[in-house]
Amino acid sequence: MKLALIGAGRIGKVHAQAIDRNPKVSLAAVADFHPEAAEALASQYGARVLNAEADFEDADIDAVLIASSTPTHAEYLERAAQSGKAVLCEKPIALDLERTRAALAVLADHPVTCALGFNRRHDPQFAALQQVLVEGRIGSLETLSIISRDPAPPPAEYVGASGGLFRDMMIHDFDMARWLLDEPIVQVQAQGSCLIDPAIGEAGDVDTAMVILTTASGRLCHINNSRRACYGYDQRIEAFGSAGMLQAQNETETRLRFTGEAGQVEDKPKWFFLERYAQAYSNEIDDFVDAWQAQRAPLAGAQDGLEALRLAEAAQRSLQERRPVALNDIR
Amino acid sequence: MKLALIGAGRIGKVHAQAIDRNPKVSLAAVADFHPEAAEALASQYGARVLNAEADFEDADIDAVLIASSTPTHAEYLERAAQSGKAVLCEKPIALDLERTRAALAVLADHPVTCALGFNRRHDPQFAALQQVLVEGRIGSLETLSIISRDPAPPPAEYVGASGGLFRDMMIHDFDMARWLLDEPIVQVQAQGSCLIDPAIGEAGDVDTAMVILTTASGRLCHINNSRRACYGYDQRIEAFGSAGMLQAQNETETRLRFTGEAGQVEDKPKWFFLERYAQAYSNEIDDFVDAWQAQRAPLAGAQDGLEALRLAEAAQRSLQERRPVALNDIR
Amino acid sequence: MKLALIGAGRIGKVHAQAIDRNPKVSLAAVADFHPEAAEALASQYGARVLNAEADFEDADIDAVLIASSTPTHAEYLERAAQSGKAVLCEKPIALDLERTRAALAVLADHPVTCALGFNRRHDPQFAALQQVLVEGRIGSLETLSIISRDPAPPPAEYVGASGGLFRDMMIHDFDMARWLLDEPIVQVQAQGSCLIDPAIGEAGDVDTAMVILTTASGRLCHINNSRRACYGYDQRIEAFGSAGMLQAQNETETRLRFTGEAGQVEDKPKWFFLERYAQAYSNEIDDFVDAWQAQRAPLAGAQDGLEALRLAEAAQRSLQERRPVALNDIR
Amino acid sequence: MKLALIGAGRIGKVHAQAIDRNPKVSLAAVADFHPEAAEALASQYGARVLNAEADFEDADIDAVLIASSTPTHAEYLERAAQSGKAVLCEKPIALDLERTRAALAVLADHPVTCALGFNRRHDPQFAALQQVLVEGRIGSLETLSIISRDPAPPPAEYVGASGGLFRDMMIHDFDMARWLLDEPIVQVQAQGSCLIDPAIGEAGDVDTAMVILTTASGRLCHINNSRRACYGYDQRIEAFGSAGMLQAQNETETRLRFTGEAGQVEDKPKWFFLERYAQAYSNEIDDFVDAWQAQRAPLAGAQDGLEALRLAEAAQRSLQERRPVALNDIR
Repeated sequence: MKLALIGAGRIGKVHAQAIDRNPKVSLAAVADFHPEAAEALASQYGARVLNAEADFEDADIDAVLIASSTPTHAEYLERAAQSGKAVLCEKPIALDLERTRAALAVLADHPVTCALGFNRRHDPQFAALQQVLVEGRIGSLETLSIISRDPAPPPAEYVGASGGLFRDMMIHDFDMARWLLDEPIVQVQAQGSCLIDPAIGEAGDVDTAMVILTTASGRLCHINNSRRACYGYDQRIEAFGSAGMLQAQNETETRLRFTGEAGQVEDKPKWFFLERYAQAYSNEIDDFVDAWQAQRAPLAGAQDGLEALRLAEAAQRSLQERRPVALNDIR
Repeated sequence: MKLALIGAGRIGKVHAQAIDRNPKVSLAAVADFHPEAAEALASQYGARVLNAEADFEDADIDAVLIASSTPTHAEYLERAAQSGKAVLCEKPIALDLERTRAALAVLADHPVTCALGFNRRHDPQFAALQQVLVEGRIGSLETLSIISRDPAPPPAEYVGASGGLFRDMMIHDFDMARWLLDEPIVQVQAQGSCLIDPAIGEAGDVDTAMVILTTASGRLCHINNSRRACYGYDQRIEAFGSAGMLQAQNETETRLRFTGEAGQVEDKPKWFFLERYAQAYSNEIDDFVDAWQAQRAPLAGAQDGLEALRLAEAAQRSLQERRPVALNDIR
Repeated sequence: MKLALIGAGRIGKVHAQAIDRNPKVSLAAVADFHPEAAEALASQYGARVLNAEADFEDADIDAVLIASSTPTHAEYLERAAQSGKAVLCEKPIALDLERTRAALAVLADHPVTCALGFNRRHDPQFAALQQVLVEGRIGSLETLSIISRDPAPPPAEYVGASGGLFRDMMIHDFDMARWLLDEPIVQVQAQGSCLIDPAIGEAGDVDTAMVILTTASGRLCHINNSRRACYGYDQRIEAFGSAGMLQAQNETETRLRFTGEAGQVEDKPKWFFLERYAQAYSNEIDDFVDAWQAQRAPLAGAQDGLEALRLAEAAQRSLQERRPVALNDIR
Repeated sequence: MKLALIGAGRIGKVHAQAIDRNPKVSLAAVADFHPEAAEALASQYGARVLNAEADFEDADIDAVLIASSTPTHAEYLERAAQSGKAVLCEKPIALDLERTRAALAVLADHPVTCALGFNRRHDPQFAALQQVLVEGRIGSLETLSIISRDPAPPPAEYVGASGGLFRDMMIHDFDMARWLLDEPIVQVQAQGSCLIDPAIGEAGDVDTAMVILTTASGRLCHINNSRRACYGYDQRIEAFGSAGMLQAQNETETRLRFTGEAGQVEDKPKWFFLERYAQAYSNEIDDFVDAWQAQRAPLAGAQDGLEALRLAEAAQRSLQERRPVALNDIR
């Protein structure tokens, strides 16, 4: 697969590296709002620089990976689809439901392979956990707990543009919840506080949040988010069912244990998503190429982006209106 | 301390054993609705059988331990206080706020040493965790997660009489939350399902529940209850703060690890409260005797029983009315 | 069982406490070389002071627990047996084989219940491990590793009188090895160094040692001793067999885990034998009383003391003569 | 670096893959005793097939990686050195000291960059452990325990040609011991048994072995080998020092923990060296290229191969002669 990468920033570089390691896909072109960033990345991997505006018609490109800034996602996605290119789009498609739905409508008219960048589904830990659930080894799933904490809060100005904690950060957990609960979520209860950085509160957001999701059959899911964990990236899931409990523990750099006067000490969790999800990004590319070749749906697609956003909208409304919100009310 | 035990059932026997091991307290008398039960326990420990109705005036008894059936707690508590006896009362004082408040009023007029049986405060794990919080070693506490799962559900008929999951089971977690959060709780959001035994649902109760508590300063607390965990009694707490996270893990019978073709296997958690909280019951007696001798407040008292019950009432109302409930509205 | 305790020192007090908690045995009398020590302990538990010399004929005593200084063990043991008393003797019977054999000969003529204080056989961890081995759950045992490290070295003067590391410290591990290997040991290879305290070396002893034992069928056992582990009492066993591996890990005070900038920290091991083997001492009394009542052999007896001492002798000779020593050569 | 690979078997393929992932080195040529094996691997990576006999003079090759059968190592090593090529040679250089010394003499005359394939030095776990030792965080190292167990025994015919357990398997542990003890080893005591496969014993070898090494200052090192661990590749190290203990635990595929009626279950160790040491093989190539570019010594060199072989020889002699062997006696 010959792939054009839109966006040469931090996450674009992660994807470029994963592409480079994958013999089934080659980085053909790189575009960026800052031409010098595109040039630097393109030259590193022997790709050409792409003028994003013009080159979507290029017959020599099979696919587009959208890793540009969030507000540009939907338009690039639509143009890629209209050009008949497969597309892997970083989440979210857009920060509002209307724009997201418009993009989905374009995809409906131009049914290309479309993957959405919910990287955690590709994480080996969580993928293995999901497999155990599917195999029924914990019996019937009853409750799920998802803990997700970033090592350090973003600047308050980022928070303002990000759509807020639910749309920007917890959206990953909403997707996890949907994937693992494996039945419709019907209600969202959210609670949030600003305990870490007052500037985040002044920007109208929270930095600490808890949510309870309820599914159609009564399964309960707890999500626990913090914008700052001094010990690193805390990414754990606990699934509880009629025949047992399954926990995905944090990954660590080494398996060393030091025992001294202060106790028995092991590594703290890996620092952030680049460390923790390196393998997930590789697997994501793999899944994308494979889906394109096999003409099957990728592990996460555009509809998953819409559904996760609906949950984020419901959580935001629940927080503001101080009441549980039925997902049916989020259109 | 010479102590009279009211109630010779399962929990009464646990207390009798803890009393027997403690050189500072002697079991002087035993009463039970079933005289033969009282006699059996009394003869085992060399105590006399007490006619509960008559003997509270007995000058030879210093204290009363109430471990009889829940509906009798409040009256025994009042009579003990009126007789000037110290009293250790199993939780709850009563299943409704009005009766509980009436008992507290009697205690206000007859200020004897009064301890309430929130045994988990005396558990070495949770006591050590609380100590670390007090010392500030995780910085400022921001979120708390309390997981509490019983090994097997009670019969549905018990559930009916018990006051329901929030008043009967989660009440312990509400007390833990109050103790550890260490500031006023202002709001309760509850969600519950009947996933384990339909008879529990028919009796009007849930068997699986999640709650979010919010404190005055915005701290968030998650409580996670299930009436059935096939692997035993799941009793864990996770406290997250600005300087770190502290987890109380489950206790196990041994520290053996078997590694074989099926993986690395360690013991499951201890089976139920008798195994897990054996030491807690001993410590509870110790604290009670010590509080009585030193004329200080015990670790958990009657007011703590009232406050935990208010949280249970709020949770029950939140579940029924499908909305967050302000604790101020629970009078 | 009415029991007389000889020795009111540190280990005597441990036994007195275990006796006090056991309803099947009562502490009737206490003797000590220092009468005031005997009096203090006797009065604490309502026992009378015993003149060790005179009272063995006392018809009112069923058993003698010998916890006096090592050089007195054998004589007390013999006198107890000659008086027809059951006897629980702290290890070792004596520091040399000849004296030990003489005591065994007296026991052969006066076959009373005789238990030897190899407390580790009564430790719940090691007892559970042994049970798993007996049940064959690791298949055929092939190798065993025993790690035993004290928190701090004894004074060099103690070392001189103790018989040295092999007779004083590793003797426990030799007994463990015998119990778990469950077949004759035929050869001992020892290596030792003085790495911790030069005074120990000047006293002619080592403070760090490794041994390899070989059994008749070729099973291999590694023993690893150090007189000082800064993190506490390190007491672990690893059994490896054809169907798996079983490890007894160290016990800790709590199961708390703190995660912070320095990593994930759990408690260090319990500090020393009083903390680690508290339950073992209780179980030892239980086993002794039960063996006496049931007229069965206790879990560890005088012959086990002799056999462990033979292994210590072999190790000492192996160290000195720098060669493996066949156990048959130790008479 | 342009590299020629000699040997297209299992380990050759591992190296080819690691080379392919490393942008600093390219696989220029492949040779194998079986031309079709060489062709298959060469075509996979776009390399040419090398006639091993003729092409060492090829000016277009910088380095040779020797992954052919053991008896050919020394000659290829010498020819590479004589041709001025850098060389990375799989261990061992030869199975006897004389042939090894002859190769070292050639290297002395032709001082090219020469790395020896002691892959474990490049394992992230063990490298991190070594770093902690070097930094002195466990104080002064006193004892070391190295556990190394293969998942399944090789065929008895392999055992015969391999030089035996000490030269073929424990040689890795001898190298680890040398690297971590960081001072001269002076004595070797070995013990071995045939407990797994009688055919191994009939071939004159052991399948289960324990060794004690002693260093000049008295540090002790225990090595524990088994040819078969039903749960996979058991690769652990425990370093004990004056200020603490450091343990490298086994790696597992995931960090999932399942808790059910059978207990708390985590993954067994990774199955064998291809899984466990995948990263080590990559790091080994990295170190080799870097050493060649920087004209520095690689992490493990030819002399390390000789010294590890001397330890294996000493162990073999110790086993046969049933006595400790001074390393000085192994010439």
